[in-house]
Amino acid sequence: MRLMRTTALVALVAAGIGFAGAAIAQDKTYTIGVSVPTADHGWTGGIDYFAQQETDRLSKLYPNVKFVVAQAPDSTKQAADLEDMVTTRNIDALVILPGDPDAMTASIKKVKDAGKWVTIVDRQLSQPGIPDLYVAGDNPGLGATTAAYFKQAMPNGGNIVVLRGLPIPIDKQRVDAFMDAIKGTNIKVLDSQFANWNRDDGYKVMQDMLTKYNNIDAVWCQDDDTLVGVLKALKEAGKDNSIWAVGGAGMNQIVKMVESGSKEVPVDVSYNPNMIATALDLTTLHFVNGNQVDGNFIINSSLITKDNAQQFDYPNTPF
Amino acid sequence: MRLMRTTALVALVAAGIGFAGAAIAQDKTYTIGVSVPTADHGWTGGIDYFAQQETDRLSKLYPNVKFVVAQAPDSTKQAADLEDMVTTRNIDALVILPGDPDAMTASIKKVKDAGKWVTIVDRQLSQPGIPDLYVAGDNPGLGATTAAYFKQAMPNGGNIVVLRGLPIPIDKQRVDAFMDAIKGTNIKVLDSQFANWNRDDGYKVMQDMLTKYNNIDAVWCQDDDTLVGVLKALKEAGKDNSIWAVGGAGMNQIVKMVESGSKEVPVDVSYNPNMIATALDLTTLHFVNGNQVDGNFIINSSLITKDNAQQFDYPNTPF
Repeated sequence: MRLMRTTALVALVAAGIGFAGAAIAQDKTYTIGVSVPTADHGWTGGIDYFAQQETDRLSKLYPNVKFVVAQAPDSTKQAADLEDMVTTRNIDALVILPGDPDAMTASIKKVKDAGKWVTIVDRQLSQPGIPDLYVAGDNPGLGATTAAYFKQAMPNGGNIVVLRGLPIPIDKQRVDAFMDAIKGTNIKVLDSQFANWNRDDGYKVMQDMLTKYNNIDAVWCQDDDTLVGVLKALKEAGKDNSIWAVGGAGMNQIVKMVESGSKEVPVDVSYNPNMIATALDLTTLHFVNGNQVDGNFIINSSLITKDNAQQFDYPNTPF
Repeated sequence: MRLMRTTALVALVAAGIGFAGAAIAQDKTYTIGVSVPTADHGWTGGIDYFAQQETDRLSKLYPNVKFVVAQAPDSTKQAADLEDMVTTRNIDALVILPGDPDAMTASIKKVKDAGKWVTIVDRQLSQPGIPDLYVAGDNPGLGATTAAYFKQAMPNGGNIVVLRGLPIPIDKQRVDAFMDAIKGTNIKVLDSQFANWNRDDGYKVMQDMLTKYNNIDAVWCQDDDTLVGVLKALKEAGKDNSIWAVGGAGMNQIVKMVESGSKEVPVDVSYNPNMIATALDLTTLHFVNGNQVDGNFIINSSLITKDNAQQFDYPNTPF
């Protein structure tokens, strides 16, 4: 009898099912579909990493929850993944970061119309009212916080160039808030081009701008991947000591530059890809613990300076 | 050797420490202080219940996290609880529903200034910028959603009375949004009085209004506890068949009335006290799992109708 009991415990533990998990596990099992873009820059690489890490953690913690994770390089594949999750995997909920939210809106609405819980991460759909839960960074805040720094760093004004992201709503929210906040100052935007939150595009667009303008004081490129490309272009043009630049997201190598007191990259603004872990946690809690979590969770976009950079310098981060 | 291993496992399981929990437990331990008002109405009773239930669940799930829970009947006691949590219990974080947010702002700011993480639930402080995380229902949404129902139910207008909550910001957010939404309609507010989200006050204020006005068509009292008092006053005055009333929060007995097709209580609006469980979950995840959760989580205030009431009818709820 004693042997039987201990053997059963060993089996339980070997299966990754512990007392804590088992104690709250219910009879019903749940399947959560997770759909993310294939990494096209460092930030989406962070998204994929945290999605994998958190689904691993949660499926150990809550043995009655299973996750189906799919990565998609484009909207055609992402739409097909959703179709598969509903028709053959029978998901109860979808947690999705739509690569192109406009193109994905109809597919996501179908999942919602099929009676599934829908959690959207980061990128707003082109039609309101679809998600049960929306988790994102503060995009207007990212623009406003950055603009406040530019105003402080350029009290008498100056000439800047703006490298935008992808032409989707969160880029517009960031840029509108930035432009609104510098209104009435002597900060002049010489030029503004899309660089798609991409390292190579950041490099090319910055090279082009350096050719066109010889009076650039500073760069706002809204994203740390783009910033890596911008810094390369500045270095090659011998401008890395005269032009400073601000990205965004809190990429570890950029946070470390800020932490070290870089003059070229004086600050950063947080927009951490681990937001997908929080989206997965909240969605899971809804099913296993009955939390009412339909709503909007907007995570702060905070200014990262030399003084506080240490708290944004995450060890073992992939991003 | 084998015996030793299984014995150790039995001990581990007996202590409520399972594989799942142990696998992610870190060396560092954390103490989270939880400060809530002593139940003064059904909704705060729900808050106390969920705070207790969730701290029990989380301390089993994450053995390296301890919770110190204190209930306070007034601001003097709640301020003393905070002082104790910082100076003698050495908390890493505070999760608080401030009974009177104006009176508690200075005490909460002290906790923040001492370098502790601060999560505020439900009620906004009188000074901005203090909390790391704010978790609340959608208060303007509660007013706007209710007003949309009144407009639909009274297409030609009518006479209503408004019973307000406590004179704190979330009451003003609800009432401002309601008044804004009925602007330009023929819905006339005959009178508006504070009933403090309280059953007895709801009863007394409604009795008073029934004495003053004989032409009331409907009541908006914003809270299901107040509504219970209002319904009692209507019944005693023989008006329970001629005046309808809408509260708010999703109290189970009210949801059941809506579900059964009541003409007197046709709808309700959700504002579930289990938001404190979500606040505790997010705060805990910040420490045990590194989630960046500083921000604002606003949970939807949804219209509860006969058609969807079933999904708001939580079994075993204390509220």
